Amino acid sequence: MDAARSHIAAHDEAIIAELRALLAIPNVATDRADIRRNAEHLVAMLERRGAHARVLEAGDAPVAVYGEILAPGATRTLLFYAHFDGQPPGLPAQWVTPAFEPTLRGGRVEDNAAVIPWALARYPLDDDARIYARSASDDKSPIVAFLAALDAMRAAGIPPSTNIKFFLEGEEEAGSPNLSRMLMEHRDLLNADVWIFGDGPMDPRGMPRVALGVRGVVSFGVTVYGPAMGLHSGHYGNVAPNPAARLAHLIASMRAEDGRILIDGLETPPPSAEIRALARDAYDTPGMLAGPQLHATEAGVSYGEAILRPALNVTQLEYGGVGAARNAIDAAASASFDIRLAPGITPAQAHNLVERHLQSQGYALVSDAPTPEQRRSHARLARLDWGDLGYPAAAASLRDPAVRHVVDVISAATEGQARIAPTLGGSLPIAPIGEVLDTPFVIVSIVNADNNQHAPNENVRVREFHRGIELYAALLAADTW
Amino acid sequence: MDAARSHIAAHDEAIIAELRALLAIPNVATDRADIRRNAEHLVAMLERRGAHARVLEAGDAPVAVYGEILAPGATRTLLFYAHFDGQPPGLPAQWVTPAFEPTLRGGRVEDNAAVIPWALARYPLDDDARIYARSASDDKSPIVAFLAALDAMRAAGIPPSTNIKFFLEGEEEAGSPNLSRMLMEHRDLLNADVWIFGDGPMDPRGMPRVALGVRGVVSFGVTVYGPAMGLHSGHYGNVAPNPAARLAHLIASMRAEDGRILIDGLETPPPSAEIRALARDAYDTPGMLAGPQLHATEAGVSYGEAILRPALNVTQLEYGGVGAARNAIDAAASASFDIRLAPGITPAQAHNLVERHLQSQGYALVSDAPTPEQRRSHARLARLDWGDLGYPAAAASLRDPAVRHVVDVISAATEGQARIAPTLGGSLPIAPIGEVLDTPFVIVSIVNADNNQHAPNENVRVREFHRGIELYAALLAADTW
Repeated sequence: MDAARSHIAAHDEAIIAELRALLAIPNVATDRADIRRNAEHLVAMLERRGAHARVLEAGDAPVAVYGEILAPGATRTLLFYAHFDGQPPGLPAQWVTPAFEPTLRGGRVEDNAAVIPWALARYPLDDDARIYARSASDDKSPIVAFLAALDAMRAAGIPPSTNIKFFLEGEEEAGSPNLSRMLMEHRDLLNADVWIFGDGPMDPRGMPRVALGVRGVVSFGVTVYGPAMGLHSGHYGNVAPNPAARLAHLIASMRAEDGRILIDGLETPPPSAEIRALARDAYDTPGMLAGPQLHATEAGVSYGEAILRPALNVTQLEYGGVGAARNAIDAAASASFDIRLAPGITPAQAHNLVERHLQSQGYALVSDAPTPEQRRSHARLARLDWGDLGYPAAAASLRDPAVRHVVDVISAATEGQARIAPTLGGSLPIAPIGEVLDTPFVIVSIVNADNNQHAPNENVRVREFHRGIELYAALLAADTW
Repeated sequence: MDAARSHIAAHDEAIIAELRALLAIPNVATDRADIRRNAEHLVAMLERRGAHARVLEAGDAPVAVYGEILAPGATRTLLFYAHFDGQPPGLPAQWVTPAFEPTLRGGRVEDNAAVIPWALARYPLDDDARIYARSASDDKSPIVAFLAALDAMRAAGIPPSTNIKFFLEGEEEAGSPNLSRMLMEHRDLLNADVWIFGDGPMDPRGMPRVALGVRGVVSFGVTVYGPAMGLHSGHYGNVAPNPAARLAHLIASMRAEDGRILIDGLETPPPSAEIRALARDAYDTPGMLAGPQLHATEAGVSYGEAILRPALNVTQLEYGGVGAARNAIDAAASASFDIRLAPGITPAQAHNLVERHLQSQGYALVSDAPTPEQRRSHARLARLDWGDLGYPAAAASLRDPAVRHVVDVISAATEGQARIAPTLGGSLPIAPIGEVLDTPFVIVSIVNADNNQHAPNENVRVREFHRGIELYAALLAADTW
C-alpha cells in the first residue's frame, strides 16, 4: 500500500489521463460499435501491461475483454471482473456536463462545486475532487484502479503473488443475457480460484465493503378476473366478485404484514448467527432509513438482516383506470411483483411455487382473458405473466479459503474498517460464475456511495479512487493461501 | 285496466304524439334553459288535465314541476314522482338516430329493426315497436303514461279515488344535490300519504316490479404511505414498508372474501325471513349472473338477498404508475371505494366507522402528504379522502298501510306477477322524502329492462309503455285504504 501511495504521488496525472480517455468512449450496451471500441481500447490498455489480451466474442452478444498476466511460480489465479458498459445516460439536459466528456470538479455538483479545467488540474488530485462522466464509478474507475495497482507493484519491484486474469463485460447494464453463454464458450480461459468483482459502491459511512453475495430476482404479474365486463357497483355490489378485493386477499395470502413471504417454500431458513452478526455490522441501518424517512425496517430487524431474507415486492397495482374513480366493479385487477430470492431457490422453482400458491388459493390459471366456458366452470380465475427468466441469488462461503483470503487481506489493509456483507440487497447476474465455472467470488467495492450510479451526473470521488488503488495493490501483493 | 286498454286502442296516436313532443326537448340537467323549457312544457301538459301546476324554484337549483288534482271527498293523497332530466347523451356517433329526435323502430336496434317513419306508423303501435330517444324510458315515458292513465279514467267516467299530486324533478341525473332544499322550501305543497316513484326498469323477465327501498352510497379514497420517495426494490425489499402490500392487508381487513364487511358497525343484522323471501323471489338470479358470466354471487346467496346487505366496493387501485412495472417500492398506494349502505347507517356514521377502522389497524391519519416529523412518530400513515357526502339507504315498510295498498293494487292488477323487491341494489336520493317529509314511498317501475338507460340508444318498448298506462290506471281507480 505504501508503494501504491508513492506511485499515485508520482504518476497521478497519467493514471487520471488513462481514466479520462476510457470515460470519453460512449458505452451504452445496445450500441455494439461503441462497445467494441471500448473493448479494443481495454485490450490495448492490458497489452501495455504485457498481458495476453483479446476481445471475446459469443455469437452476436456484445463483446467482452479477456486478459491474463501469469506470475512465475504462482499456484493461484485471481480473476478481476468489471463491466465497461454503462446505463444509457438519459436526457442530456439532466447532466450538468455531457456524460461522455469527463469533467473535473472540486467537489459535488449538488454543492455547486466549480469545474476545474483539466489544464489547470494539480496532481495528485485533491481527495474531495470528483470526476463526472457516465461509468466514472460503474465500472470504469475500478478497471483503471486495478491496472494502476499493478503498475505500482511493478514500479516498486513487488511481484504479484498470483496469476491475474481479467474478464471485462460489455452488457452488464443490459442484464447480462449472454453471460452464461460467454462463460461456457470461454470456460477454459476463465478458470480461476476466485473472481473479484470491482462493481458496486462502498459503505455510505465511507468504510470499504466486501460483499459475499447478492439476492436473486424474478418478476411476474397477476391478473385476477371478476365479471366479464365492468358493472354498476350498486346493482352488483355483493353480487359480482370484486377483482380488486380478491387481489388484495391474494396479496395478503402471499406476504405477511412484516414482509415475511407466506408462499410455501419461498421463505428460506434464517442463516447462522455468525452471518446475521456480519450482516448487522456491515450496514448503517439508521443511515439507510434516514433518507427515505423510514420509521423502522419493515422486517423489524437491522438493514443487513432484513436483506438476508427473500423479499416479495409489490411493484404495481392497476384497477379501475386512472383519474376519477367510477362507481363500478371492473372486469379485472392486476398487480406486478418482484421477488428478491435468497440462496437455495432458483427462478424456475420460484415460478412453480408462485403458481402452486395461486392454485392453493382456489385460482384456476388461464393464459389469456377467460372464455365464457372457463368462467362457468371456475369460481376464481387468474392469469400469471412471467417477465424475464430472472436470476438466482449467489453466495460465496467464508469457509472457502480463497474467499477467506480476500476478506482477510482487505480487512488487514483497512485495519479492520472494511465491512463484510454476506449479501447485497440488490441483484447481479453473478450466479453463472458459480453455476458455469464453479468458482467462488468476492465483491470488493471501492467507489464512493454517493456516485449517482445509473443516474445523471455519475461521478467518482478521488479519495475513494486512490484508496481503491491501494486496496487492489494489497490484494495483488499479499501472500497467497 | 279495461278502460285504459280501450283508451289506448282509440287514442294511442295522441298519447304517442305527447311522448314524442316531450322527448324532443333536450334535457341535460346542466343546461338550465333546456330544463326550464321541459318544465314549462310539463306544466302545460298538467294544465291541459285541469291540474293546478307550476314551476318550482329553489334558489339557483334546476327547476322542478309541481301539480295537483284534488278529488272531491278524497281523504288520501298519492304523489307521483318522476324526473324529466336525462343523462348527457354522450357522443352523437354512438346513437343510431339523434338523441333528441324520437325515432320509431319495429324492434331493437341491436336486431337491426328498421326505422318506421312517423307518417307511416299504424296505431295502436305494435307491442314490439320501440321509441328511441334520450329519456324515452328514464323517465319521460312514465310521466306520459301516468297522464294517459288519468285521461283513460276520465274518458271512462271513473273518478280518481285519491287526490293526485305531481313532483317532477329536473336534476336527478346530476345526483339531486338540491332535492332536500326543494322539499324543504315546498314541504306544504308536497305533503302526501305516499310517493309513487315512476323511475327504473321492470324485471328483465318481463314482470312488473315494485321496489320498497334503495341502498345508500358513500365514496372515499385511502392513500397508504411507504418511503418518502420511490426506492430500489432490491436494496430496500424487506426494509421499506411496501405501501401496496399494506393497502392489500388493509382492504383484506375491511372486507371478507365473500364480501362481508369487517368494518365494525357497518354490517347490519340480516332482515327478517319474510323480507329475505321477497328479495329472493323478486329477482332473476340466473338472469342477473348470465350477462356478466358470473359463476355465483360473491355473497353465495340469491341476487335479491345479496343486495339486502351493505356492499363495500373497491372501485380503483393506483400504485407504481401505469405501463411497464419498475422494480421499485413506491412512496404511496391508493384505493377508491364506495359503500352501498343498508338502512340504519347514515353516511356520516359510515365516515366515522371507516375512520375508526383505519385507526384500529394502526394507521395515524394525515390530511396531506406526511411531514418528516409525522413519518418519524408513526409507523403507519394513511390519508382518507371523502367524496360527496353521499346519501343514506331508504326503505319503505310493508306494514305501512299506504305502501301495502300500492303493493296490493299492483299485485292484483298483474294477477300476482309483480315482484316485490325490498330494495334495489343501486342508490337513489330518495331518503330526503322520508327525512324531510316523513312520507313513505313505493317504486313502481314500468319500462322494459333492456332500455339502454344512461347509454346511447335509450328506448322504451311499446308493450311495457302500454301496460304501464294500465297499471297506473289501476292505481288511480282502486278503492283507497
